[in-house]
Amino acid sequence: MPGHRQLQLALFGAGRMGTIHAENIARHSRAALAAVVDPDVTGARQLAEKFQSQVRLPAEVFDDPDIDAIVIASAASTHPGLIDQALARRKAIFCEKPLARDLDTVRSLVAAVEATGTPFLLAFNRRFDPGFSSLASRLRQGEAGTPELVLLTSRDPTPPPLDYIVASGGILRETTIHDIDMARWLTGEEPESVHAVGASRTDPRIAAAGHADTVIVTLTMPSGALVSINNSWRATYGYDQRIEVLGANGMLQLANVLSSPVVAWNSQGGVSGKPLPFFLERYADAYRREIDYFVRRLQEGGAMSPGAADGLKALEIAAAAEESMKSGRVIRLS
Amino acid sequence: MPGHRQLQLALFGAGRMGTIHAENIARHSRAALAAVVDPDVTGARQLAEKFQSQVRLPAEVFDDPDIDAIVIASAASTHPGLIDQALARRKAIFCEKPLARDLDTVRSLVAAVEATGTPFLLAFNRRFDPGFSSLASRLRQGEAGTPELVLLTSRDPTPPPLDYIVASGGILRETTIHDIDMARWLTGEEPESVHAVGASRTDPRIAAAGHADTVIVTLTMPSGALVSINNSWRATYGYDQRIEVLGANGMLQLANVLSSPVVAWNSQGGVSGKPLPFFLERYADAYRREIDYFVRRLQEGGAMSPGAADGLKALEIAAAAEESMKSGRVIRLS
Amino acid sequence: MPGHRQLQLALFGAGRMGTIHAENIARHSRAALAAVVDPDVTGARQLAEKFQSQVRLPAEVFDDPDIDAIVIASAASTHPGLIDQALARRKAIFCEKPLARDLDTVRSLVAAVEATGTPFLLAFNRRFDPGFSSLASRLRQGEAGTPELVLLTSRDPTPPPLDYIVASGGILRETTIHDIDMARWLTGEEPESVHAVGASRTDPRIAAAGHADTVIVTLTMPSGALVSINNSWRATYGYDQRIEVLGANGMLQLANVLSSPVVAWNSQGGVSGKPLPFFLERYADAYRREIDYFVRRLQEGGAMSPGAADGLKALEIAAAAEESMKSGRVIRLS
Amino acid sequence: MPGHRQLQLALFGAGRMGTIHAENIARHSRAALAAVVDPDVTGARQLAEKFQSQVRLPAEVFDDPDIDAIVIASAASTHPGLIDQALARRKAIFCEKPLARDLDTVRSLVAAVEATGTPFLLAFNRRFDPGFSSLASRLRQGEAGTPELVLLTSRDPTPPPLDYIVASGGILRETTIHDIDMARWLTGEEPESVHAVGASRTDPRIAAAGHADTVIVTLTMPSGALVSINNSWRATYGYDQRIEVLGANGMLQLANVLSSPVVAWNSQGGVSGKPLPFFLERYADAYRREIDYFVRRLQEGGAMSPGAADGLKALEIAAAAEESMKSGRVIRLS
Repeated sequence: MPGHRQLQLALFGAGRMGTIHAENIARHSRAALAAVVDPDVTGARQLAEKFQSQVRLPAEVFDDPDIDAIVIASAASTHPGLIDQALARRKAIFCEKPLARDLDTVRSLVAAVEATGTPFLLAFNRRFDPGFSSLASRLRQGEAGTPELVLLTSRDPTPPPLDYIVASGGILRETTIHDIDMARWLTGEEPESVHAVGASRTDPRIAAAGHADTVIVTLTMPSGALVSINNSWRATYGYDQRIEVLGANGMLQLANVLSSPVVAWNSQGGVSGKPLPFFLERYADAYRREIDYFVRRLQEGGAMSPGAADGLKALEIAAAAEESMKSGRVIRLS
Repeated sequence: MPGHRQLQLALFGAGRMGTIHAENIARHSRAALAAVVDPDVTGARQLAEKFQSQVRLPAEVFDDPDIDAIVIASAASTHPGLIDQALARRKAIFCEKPLARDLDTVRSLVAAVEATGTPFLLAFNRRFDPGFSSLASRLRQGEAGTPELVLLTSRDPTPPPLDYIVASGGILRETTIHDIDMARWLTGEEPESVHAVGASRTDPRIAAAGHADTVIVTLTMPSGALVSINNSWRATYGYDQRIEVLGANGMLQLANVLSSPVVAWNSQGGVSGKPLPFFLERYADAYRREIDYFVRRLQEGGAMSPGAADGLKALEIAAAAEESMKSGRVIRLS
Repeated sequence: MPGHRQLQLALFGAGRMGTIHAENIARHSRAALAAVVDPDVTGARQLAEKFQSQVRLPAEVFDDPDIDAIVIASAASTHPGLIDQALARRKAIFCEKPLARDLDTVRSLVAAVEATGTPFLLAFNRRFDPGFSSLASRLRQGEAGTPELVLLTSRDPTPPPLDYIVASGGILRETTIHDIDMARWLTGEEPESVHAVGASRTDPRIAAAGHADTVIVTLTMPSGALVSINNSWRATYGYDQRIEVLGANGMLQLANVLSSPVVAWNSQGGVSGKPLPFFLERYADAYRREIDYFVRRLQEGGAMSPGAADGLKALEIAAAAEESMKSGRVIRLS
Repeated sequence: MPGHRQLQLALFGAGRMGTIHAENIARHSRAALAAVVDPDVTGARQLAEKFQSQVRLPAEVFDDPDIDAIVIASAASTHPGLIDQALARRKAIFCEKPLARDLDTVRSLVAAVEATGTPFLLAFNRRFDPGFSSLASRLRQGEAGTPELVLLTSRDPTPPPLDYIVASGGILRETTIHDIDMARWLTGEEPESVHAVGASRTDPRIAAAGHADTVIVTLTMPSGALVSINNSWRATYGYDQRIEVLGANGMLQLANVLSSPVVAWNSQGGVSGKPLPFFLERYADAYRREIDYFVRRLQEGGAMSPGAADGLKALEIAAAAEESMKSGRVIRLS
């Protein structure tokens, strides 16, 4: 890597996603894990030790001129504050979704990001998955013709814990938002209308809290492309992530990814491997590639995508879907 | 077949579907093709000759006490009159959809069928397809648990002729209605609400006539089951008929049926067979089985399913979907 | 069918295969099932009644100038005598394999068939299967390039009864012979050498009788194409019939045919349909098509293929394979 | 990794396989790439730089008491000398196949390895592939019952360079040897007989040099299990690595691994992803896992498998296959 010093990245959040990012940063030839920040000092220390990094306080990170960028994988409630400080100190930002829970805050954060011109990558991980991005690029090259029907399936094996559901705002903001981003990315369009229906099937406590665990969302695009998203938090067979795009010239399908190429034939029929268990396994490559993209873009310059505005757009659509689900009406988007 | 004389069936309509029914009747060991009726005498004659039957006039058929049942495969506009006469003469009825174009007529026909107790089979062919019916029966046996998400895909390789589209009332009444019937049949429920969006992508003349060729329809069921239907009249890869049901215990999928088990591996990848071209090939077995079912039920007694009321229900839902598509609103069903 | 009277076919053998042929003949628009012949008069009578035919004695059939052809589906031991009589009376012959059990008899039968020029179809059913024949024709059109490796898999769910095994001469003459015919047909070549290994795994009585139930046979072709055949009489998952041809430009694969397009996803993975249970189901189309081919060829003239000589060639190779399996040596074929 | 210092590994060979091992060693938390040795100093230097290691001479490596083990990925002709020296200096050995080109040398090397008790891992990479090892372990757990038929497919997209073919001894020693190891590993048996046929189809120069590029090898096992191996150096569709085991209770199949989960449906049919291009991509995980296994076993103790004796056994069988192919005879193995 002649001509480049290693980028110094500080990681906020030593939880599940933080651990993944820590490893991918530490292994990256052009980046260094300069700091791990987490109020849970034990967790932070373990992570720092494992990857030869050090535990630091937020202020130390932001004051350190050697830190080039921060990676935000902490609780969602901390995101706005961290973004604000990073913008103030001109540190590049890699941020797990969402920028913030409420739309107004997101809007002002996006405005600030854009005003400062700070490099900002919103971690919509699927865009970096080899399968998803291959489908998207083949679609853009016209392989299926102009999209007419886009079907997006995202199903989790089990619901998140109830308090997480409540804090996150529910399935549309937590799960569907990925498919909404996918719909925008695959079609290159902003939806004109959104319709959502939901049901609560998996756990009476989720129902009692007024939350859905099963939804179907329909988006209409200006070109006439129609999008149908289906989500569930109870796919007993495993994590399920699929895309299907019908266009004027044919169809592109992204199959679910299985954990094994072994098929057993017995008196039941042919039994294939199970899907990969959950997002950590399914998107391991995507997590590596999104860090790699962030590092390379920082070094080589150029706009980052998806950016803060993509997070805002997706959240606006998720909020409209929420309104539709609650009101039973179709919501027009301006 | 001891104890049974052959059932005498009169066929109305010597077109594409009529030809299929003629062959299946003629080949059935318990049934005879007693008459072919069609204003196009040449077509009727050819069909009658091919299957050792005779061309007759409607009045002759209805007056003939030896005719047990009529099979209606003529133009939709003739259905109400034929049903009326058959009811008057107590002849059993096998009827291609729809009973009638307008809902009021359908309602009065259904009332008449039920009042007379005349055996009536509405030819929703998919219910008789081995794949569809196997999925339905496994679902009913609880293999996937209670249904939570039902995804129905029906796509034709090309649009029907424009005048046929206009006469039939459009894609929701012509194509989607099969999926609506499937949704009712698979869940055993009547939808509470329907939402539909559509677009016109394949042919400017279809657009100019105010018709859609691409639709997504969402149904909500009282149990909380959610249904998503997608239809298109432009699947360049061939006829596409699929079902996916996610339930509390797993998922059942009906794959599209291919025309060949040969796969060619070359520099492109593995190239599978194409789907069967269209409904005539795809549902050849279903057409045989629905005639067989009709004949056996007539001889052995017992209610027929799907019946006239199923035609009414499906049409009511299709009409509501139409209203939704036009108004941009969600329609509640009582 | 202008200009053609219905061909009058007499069926010898009212067993399993006879029943299939009876139905296919009776349903054929250009053929009639003129007689059923079987020493088991009850079986013959049932079959004749079912298809509006009549039971006759062999002599009546051969003396009847209206009988155009005989269909031999009786016990293998009766084949030579029936062929002899049919040749003497100039009746066309459709014959289930084998022409005879011993090679010398087969050789003299083939010579007689060829000397008399009698139309003769040997019922190697796989050549008439839509999948097998599609693969063969695509291969011939050069889709995979010149064949280099041909892999043939034929496995039965269970062994035949022991006395049948003993009478038929064993797995190489009973099962492998179909793959040997396939190898000749697909490559258009006669093998130069054959090597066979076998094992007896499924039933101690089969082992005690000195018979194998599991074999691998290797053929080398003059072009350099190599063929590997594997057979078993214990595929607990169902009947398994596959082809794979690697050529200079790619590979053609014939997948096994399943009984259902439904896939169930549960905690085990994705469970596909089972294979079709056995040859009656798997080759239902092929049986129809071979009768149709026989009838059309008889009416339209032209050589029939596979003919008597194909039965001889396949049997010679099977016998060589037997010698290889017994001796542990490679056998050169002249 | 409490209680363990990092293992110091010296890598011999900075070519294609060396580069892969270098990366996997460098990234391993319990191992360090202590030295890179290669007569091509430029290549060695680049590799050393990339992974923060250093270039050293063989003598330096063997004299250095801190070096725990050597990884042999240099030209095959250097293997015996390196193994001898490593044994003399009691350094553990990770060795790419073969131990040596000629059987006598291999035998004396195996004897020396066993006499000294030096930890030795022979890099039969497929044993470490997640798919292969999952199939093997499910087989051992009895999922398919006792193996009756084992079919092994290994095909390369293109032949190696001619001088490499000549030096390596040809396809049986270069390619088939992996399948021979697989056959031994999957069945847990040593073959009793071997038969091989070959052809030269891809390149006249390979033919002129007397080498085959297409082979079928049959092994018989004491239990009665039969093994069929097919290899080619011209799979135009990509690298092809498959296993199929038929046992008393069913069948286990390892499908080929594709480069993409995207399927495109168009007028040709459904076009799947291509296979991964070649071994570097297909076995990336296996290469990681074999280094990891070597490191862990060294630290934790215990026998390594596959060991030197496995290399000898596989080579003996490959040599017998060679003799069979040349002589046209079946070779008995003692």
